[in-house]
Amino acid sequence: MFERKHLKNLKGYVSGIQPTFNNDIIKLNSNENPYPPSSRIMDCLKDFNFEQLRFYPSAKSDSLRECISKIYDVEVENIFCGNGSDEIISLVFKGFFEENSSIILPYPTYTLYETIAKIQNVNTIFINTDEDFSIDIDKILSTSKKATGVVIVNPNAPTGILLSVEKIKFLLNQFKGLVILDEAYIDFADENSSCLNLIKMYPNLIVLRTLSKSYSLCGIRLGYCFASKDIISVLDKIKDSYNIDTITQLIAEEGLKDRAYFNINLEKVKRTRIRLENELVNLGFKVYGLNANFLLCKPENGLEAKDIYDYLVDQNIFIRYFNQKRLADKLRISIGTGKEIDILLSHLNKLVTEREMSFEPNF
Amino acid sequence: MFERKHLKNLKGYVSGIQPTFNNDIIKLNSNENPYPPSSRIMDCLKDFNFEQLRFYPSAKSDSLRECISKIYDVEVENIFCGNGSDEIISLVFKGFFEENSSIILPYPTYTLYETIAKIQNVNTIFINTDEDFSIDIDKILSTSKKATGVVIVNPNAPTGILLSVEKIKFLLNQFKGLVILDEAYIDFADENSSCLNLIKMYPNLIVLRTLSKSYSLCGIRLGYCFASKDIISVLDKIKDSYNIDTITQLIAEEGLKDRAYFNINLEKVKRTRIRLENELVNLGFKVYGLNANFLLCKPENGLEAKDIYDYLVDQNIFIRYFNQKRLADKLRISIGTGKEIDILLSHLNKLVTEREMSFEPNF
Repeated sequence: MFERKHLKNLKGYVSGIQPTFNNDIIKLNSNENPYPPSSRIMDCLKDFNFEQLRFYPSAKSDSLRECISKIYDVEVENIFCGNGSDEIISLVFKGFFEENSSIILPYPTYTLYETIAKIQNVNTIFINTDEDFSIDIDKILSTSKKATGVVIVNPNAPTGILLSVEKIKFLLNQFKGLVILDEAYIDFADENSSCLNLIKMYPNLIVLRTLSKSYSLCGIRLGYCFASKDIISVLDKIKDSYNIDTITQLIAEEGLKDRAYFNINLEKVKRTRIRLENELVNLGFKVYGLNANFLLCKPENGLEAKDIYDYLVDQNIFIRYFNQKRLADKLRISIGTGKEIDILLSHLNKLVTEREMSFEPNF
Repeated sequence: MFERKHLKNLKGYVSGIQPTFNNDIIKLNSNENPYPPSSRIMDCLKDFNFEQLRFYPSAKSDSLRECISKIYDVEVENIFCGNGSDEIISLVFKGFFEENSSIILPYPTYTLYETIAKIQNVNTIFINTDEDFSIDIDKILSTSKKATGVVIVNPNAPTGILLSVEKIKFLLNQFKGLVILDEAYIDFADENSSCLNLIKMYPNLIVLRTLSKSYSLCGIRLGYCFASKDIISVLDKIKDSYNIDTITQLIAEEGLKDRAYFNINLEKVKRTRIRLENELVNLGFKVYGLNANFLLCKPENGLEAKDIYDYLVDQNIFIRYFNQKRLADKLRISIGTGKEIDILLSHLNKLVTEREMSFEPNF
């Protein structure tokens, strides 16, 4: 076969099950937002001149970059837009990491980084997180001489653990390679958790964002990143010439501009997260980080994570089970609507009650 | 800086000028289709449930691949869909060509291939086309031992020259590396010019298609390719996990399904091409290949290509001028609407007449 040597044994990225859009299914397995995107999107498409699709899109998504520039108060030259964060991550590897070089990743983290590194023939050095899944910057720094890059997903997935701005600064002050900070879930964390402002001080920092989570727009592929002008210009040079659809650019801009709706949805998700956390604790689950639109939890009530997962699939409720080191006894649950979480909780409640009943003495 | 060594001196791909969508401009510089895409697209988007955008798209564009399978009578396992052909070309280089290996390209051809090869750190060996720009397969074969791949754009851009199926077969019978056959413009050539059916016989052939040209849909980024199951499975493994928007998948499918409209537009473009060719010849231009939705032509009437280009820009008419070897004395004109071509021709006519007048004796 014709494929390159280093790809022969590679398995592609494995995403959560994607059942067909269907009102009977409760889908809490891909950290999608339970609320629809802004209605401004539908309105603006009504006025869209479809004839325009016969022309190429703006190659650099000019208007969208300007919109992002205003919202985040960052210069346009420090902004790049990609066909999802996925494209940006691929481009970062393609543009900045030589083949057979090494990057550092905490374990566990978003598995796509390992997949993309392998595709790009870049080695990965995993640094185990602490028992509570917090990331130890000293451990990373003690290994960092071997690496030209460090990836931190913050809040981390699938743990929901947040590293403070201070700790990221500490890393940036010591490590002179590239630091990729993936803030896909940062909007769900407390205010002032983002390291976006640090791009002005650190020319080796790339901060990634996406419309997939907090903007309910994973159906369009739109990620963006912030970095020094030099880094952005390399990304522009190596990206596909027209990487984002005209309609996608338009939808993204409308989605971003509706700040009021964005904030309302964030608050709803955060409130549901608090409620879910409380209920899970009451049901005998240990819950990890509270900073994203999902919760990682471990049943400590005698139930097995995999059994709970399988049972819920039978009820048409999809959560995420990772059959891998340190995660196989845990479950990741995306924050759904209040009603979806009610249904989930009633099933979990039933399982826990049945389990307790099975320990009652027989008369 | 952090960029990889081989990228330091790379210049990115240079596309034609993309003036803002505007009725005062005649845009004949990017081989866009002069007719709008199928109106079925607008209709289907009216029924689209925008809430669906909160979910990830189909990772493999399942429904779209099935639609392509039916239209082209090719098995789904032999089809891949990308975020424009651009993404597919990038993935082919990423997946099949080792760094520092070499591929063969005719000269001139679509310059994006050279750019992507450089980005991917793959060497390019250019084989000069004959004086009339036809591609000499024997010359390619005599160099092919040094190469693991051959790229043929067919009809070639910017020449419009078509290689016959027989000649491509001859290449495939001799050359055992990967053959990338880019049929972006094939719909504008005569029937039975495509090599699509050859994928069943040759496991080293990739045939690329796009919705950008004959389907008037370059505003959405959608390319597809046909190849052996093994090649497709590698592309699936190394692509971004969700590479195409939900809406893009839907628009592409509707665009493809409207066969009647597709055929009507093709005929209109072909008729205008014949007319433009005749008129250009009458005006003292030599015209090259007649197989795509553009014509490459060389003024042999005393006018300079660059002067014509500059004059037309001042009239808000954009055609393409390539300041490179063997092309700097020529112009590439995309086929516009009948009316656009009328306006273009009246300006060319004026230039030619003025030129002739300047040679009249003074009384």
